[in-house]
Amino acid sequence: MSSAIITLTTDFGISDSYIAQMKGVILGINPEAIIVDISHQIEPHNVREAAFVLSTVQSSFPKGTIHVAVVDPGVGTKRRAIILRTPQADLIAPDNGILSNVFQQVTARSIQHPQIVSESNIKAVAITNPKYFRSPVSNTFHGRDIFAPVAAQLSLGAPISSFGKFVTTIEILPIPALFLSPDGSITGEIIHIDHFGNLISNIKEEDLPLRKNLIIEIGKKKISGLSRMYANGDKLLAIINSNGYLEISLKEGNASSYLHMKVGGEVKVKPGPK
Amino acid sequence: MSSAIITLTTDFGISDSYIAQMKGVILGINPEAIIVDISHQIEPHNVREAAFVLSTVQSSFPKGTIHVAVVDPGVGTKRRAIILRTPQADLIAPDNGILSNVFQQVTARSIQHPQIVSESNIKAVAITNPKYFRSPVSNTFHGRDIFAPVAAQLSLGAPISSFGKFVTTIEILPIPALFLSPDGSITGEIIHIDHFGNLISNIKEEDLPLRKNLIIEIGKKKISGLSRMYANGDKLLAIINSNGYLEISLKEGNASSYLHMKVGGEVKVKPGPK
Amino acid sequence: MSSAIITLTTDFGISDSYIAQMKGVILGINPEAIIVDISHQIEPHNVREAAFVLSTVQSSFPKGTIHVAVVDPGVGTKRRAIILRTPQADLIAPDNGILSNVFQQVTARSIQHPQIVSESNIKAVAITNPKYFRSPVSNTFHGRDIFAPVAAQLSLGAPISSFGKFVTTIEILPIPALFLSPDGSITGEIIHIDHFGNLISNIKEEDLPLRKNLIIEIGKKKISGLSRMYANGDKLLAIINSNGYLEISLKEGNASSYLHMKVGGEVKVKPGPK
Repeated sequence: MSSAIITLTTDFGISDSYIAQMKGVILGINPEAIIVDISHQIEPHNVREAAFVLSTVQSSFPKGTIHVAVVDPGVGTKRRAIILRTPQADLIAPDNGILSNVFQQVTARSIQHPQIVSESNIKAVAITNPKYFRSPVSNTFHGRDIFAPVAAQLSLGAPISSFGKFVTTIEILPIPALFLSPDGSITGEIIHIDHFGNLISNIKEEDLPLRKNLIIEIGKKKISGLSRMYANGDKLLAIINSNGYLEISLKEGNASSYLHMKVGGEVKVKPGPK
Repeated sequence: MSSAIITLTTDFGISDSYIAQMKGVILGINPEAIIVDISHQIEPHNVREAAFVLSTVQSSFPKGTIHVAVVDPGVGTKRRAIILRTPQADLIAPDNGILSNVFQQVTARSIQHPQIVSESNIKAVAITNPKYFRSPVSNTFHGRDIFAPVAAQLSLGAPISSFGKFVTTIEILPIPALFLSPDGSITGEIIHIDHFGNLISNIKEEDLPLRKNLIIEIGKKKISGLSRMYANGDKLLAIINSNGYLEISLKEGNASSYLHMKVGGEVKVKPGPK
Repeated sequence: MSSAIITLTTDFGISDSYIAQMKGVILGINPEAIIVDISHQIEPHNVREAAFVLSTVQSSFPKGTIHVAVVDPGVGTKRRAIILRTPQADLIAPDNGILSNVFQQVTARSIQHPQIVSESNIKAVAITNPKYFRSPVSNTFHGRDIFAPVAAQLSLGAPISSFGKFVTTIEILPIPALFLSPDGSITGEIIHIDHFGNLISNIKEEDLPLRKNLIIEIGKKKISGLSRMYANGDKLLAIINSNGYLEISLKEGNASSYLHMKVGGEVKVKPGPK
């Protein structure tokens, strides 16, 4: 037995017993596993959202953590199941793009050929060995029948090569690109809206053209400069959030409702007037 | 101390501290208990829904798991509290029918006399020994004051006979019956709608009259044949789900919204034309 | 390592990864910590609601439990972070009033000078030692960068004095007072509405003027006498709940919806006619 950490990220919600069935299977194999829920409120079938959420936790968990992610509209089809090993963690998921953001985080690679797993610091295995599956395997719930038992066996020390063959490519979703204008402005989009209604963009701190006198445009609003804290600023504010992304927030309110802004909405950062 | 698994199924929701109060009491008695949430989103006072959800996790958890179920509109009245011991698990709950589906699962009995506990593989005890209760016992929260400490003591190895006397009957809810027609068709009903809007019926795989050319009727829609996976089929599809029940699903959508179908709605399976 | 219990109470919701980020940091420092969620559904920025919820769990958890509470609109400002040590628990939180109800519970003090920490049974420290923080500390997520690692270090046995200097005052919110009338009636208000729609008032059992023939007035309704259990009474009923507060409940229904009553609504208890 081994007290490894296994996290779960799914679109299963919390009203049914699906999550508990996965936990029961894990604990039946490794009673000492420490199971942590990341989120089960991923929008149903929204692989992209899960990919983002998964990337936000990588640096907070100890090395060797096992992250299981199941947003899996293709369950039962021929889509592969994979284990991705990074210097930080093992990730177990359907090979449907759900590991895109983590992959990009680790390889720091541009998106031209993102699907090729050929870095020295990253490995992937296609899960095929039925020895590690729950029996029989249903066609509708691989979370319980494949991903959970594989995670538990991995937590007990099974080498990743025992689950299947190494693969050289994995599915990567095209990650929304930033658009750079000749005037030095940068345009991105909202990729996640959190529980507070904060609008999280795909613009990272290091992407910002200038740190002074920035003008942030969102919907029909303009925000002058970045705030250093939520309590600061004059109602609507822009801030670099705790994961390093540019975020639009409404002071003690809900920016998403206030701006009628959804995922995919445009955010533009301009250098301010001199 | 003992690292037994204790699961919790309630209608308490997750916004209040009720669940945490139960967990605090359990951990105060057995700090090594592994506590797993099944669901706290059972519709308030809906004993039948809890009974179904509880039955779906039995085979996923290791033998000896302790399941605590508290949907308890009669708390503080003379309704009994019981421990049901099956070959698979111990279940601790108010004796209000919440163990009906598990009971039927274990005894595989028809519903004529389902309330009699006289199988050799099943035992029940009425919880009466105040030595194991939190003191004082409130009239409003037996989850915290009786069920939690009893579960914790049981996880430490207390024999079930120490909690009270063996009983020969327990409350069983009439489980919706299937209706068989002379033409070979079978009629059941929707007993649960999951987070994805999947409509789960009380028709099990083994109840299906014929495996080929089936026509599934739900609302005003007809579905031809069973799909083997969610990604299959043409929008609306019928599938045997991961717990063995016939389920109606909308491909990457919400069947419940699409069909305006609720719990109790009729599902009919007909042998198809030859 | 040490199997101390660390609880979490926040307004972070459960759809994002914020809670998991905190748990990852805690487990990275103390892999044996037992982490229990109290609630993450505190209304965003509602410090008062969190203060109430936090007080309801104190007696259910074993002595020495570490409670982390993060409802923190002032994150990144000069508001202090504190550890409050009571005979029952250690509480780690922003010093914004979130510990008010626990403080009052422990000191049993009237509200004249509630902010002074000078009881022999209570101590407070201002958290300032960056040695125990995650590095770098963000301005937006002290839950992950300060409160989580401090809780984990405390669970490993670090003395509270190692985190900073003892302080003599902490922030206390004015707790809604009860109003006593010359006719012996007492007026309070609704301070929390639970998942069932039960209306929990700030009137405690010991505040009630007379135990017999009470008339409870709420909205335009009058309730005669206290019920002993939820199943009792005639639809709308008043009861002393499991934390000792006067609560208005609708038998197998939702009192809040039925009465259109919200937090802050008035409740009056009158001695009945002789």
